[in-house]
Amino acid sequence: MLAAASLVLVLVALSSTFAKYVPKSGQRIPQSLSRGWGDQLNWAQTYEEALFLSRSRNKPLMVLFHLEDCPHSQGEPVQLSPIQRILDEDFVVFNVIQETVDQHLSPDGQYVPRIIFVDPSMTVRDDIIGRYSNRLYAYEPGDVKLCKCSS
Amino acid sequence: MLAAASLVLVLVALSSTFAKYVPKSGQRIPQSLSRGWGDQLNWAQTYEEALFLSRSRNKPLMVLFHLEDCPHSQGEPVQLSPIQRILDEDFVVFNVIQETVDQHLSPDGQYVPRIIFVDPSMTVRDDIIGRYSNRLYAYEPGDVKLCKCSS
Repeated sequence: MLAAASLVLVLVALSSTFAKYVPKSGQRIPQSLSRGWGDQLNWAQTYEEALFLSRSRNKPLMVLFHLEDCPHSQGEPVQLSPIQRILDEDFVVFNVIQETVDQHLSPDGQYVPRIIFVDPSMTVRDDIIGRYSNRLYAYEPGDVKLCKCSS
Repeated sequence: MLAAASLVLVLVALSSTFAKYVPKSGQRIPQSLSRGWGDQLNWAQTYEEALFLSRSRNKPLMVLFHLEDCPHSQGEPVQLSPIQRILDEDFVVFNVIQETVDQHLSPDGQYVPRIIFVDPSMTVRDDIIGRYSNRLYAYEPGDVKLCKCSS
């Protein structure tokens, strides 16, 4: 079903149809792919795109599961440029609110916030964990922990 | 493998690490989920999110496959507010560059630009087609066609 018995819809040239519309609720701030996690990073949009970029660029992928407006997913922004530089130059980054269909991304369950790494061979690196033994891939605001892992 | 023999990475509190980093290539414009297809629409980020929103809001989903910077995916922006309003109020919208894993979204192949509709019961509406007989779900810039379909 498509909402109504009769539906009038533009199927084509949608690119030329989107200018100057203002919602009833007022002008919206354009949604950013960073979702507040760093506008200067090149965030992948979808998991498929993230995997493609990881493989083609031979860079590991960081998947960040979070909730919008969840206090545990956020923190006070501070400048830690070196970390952003590492993520920007050596990683593919992807943040997502909705769970993906890939169950390998939830080795110990679906919760937020959590971070999972995937290497360019598309292997989920479930050996890279955080500091919490009950939720291995969780982190909390205020935690700034360096994880040193060999590969 | 994760790029280097030894890897130092922040696993936690990433929300507090993203401020003020500037890439070598210079400040970037934040990536928008609209990708130029209408900043005032609430674009879903991923296909999973789009399906979830479609089902929970009982609104049909429009999936727009395109390429960034592809001339055939773009057109001269003009104001057609009524169409944007319909999409904004009665649909869930999702635009994507990378193909999804759902093969039902490519009934006659993977090409861009193309538009596929999915109804809230998660059924791909492959009966809603465009004007081209060889690529049923394609559209071209300059085409502004109304499709009247009953359901």
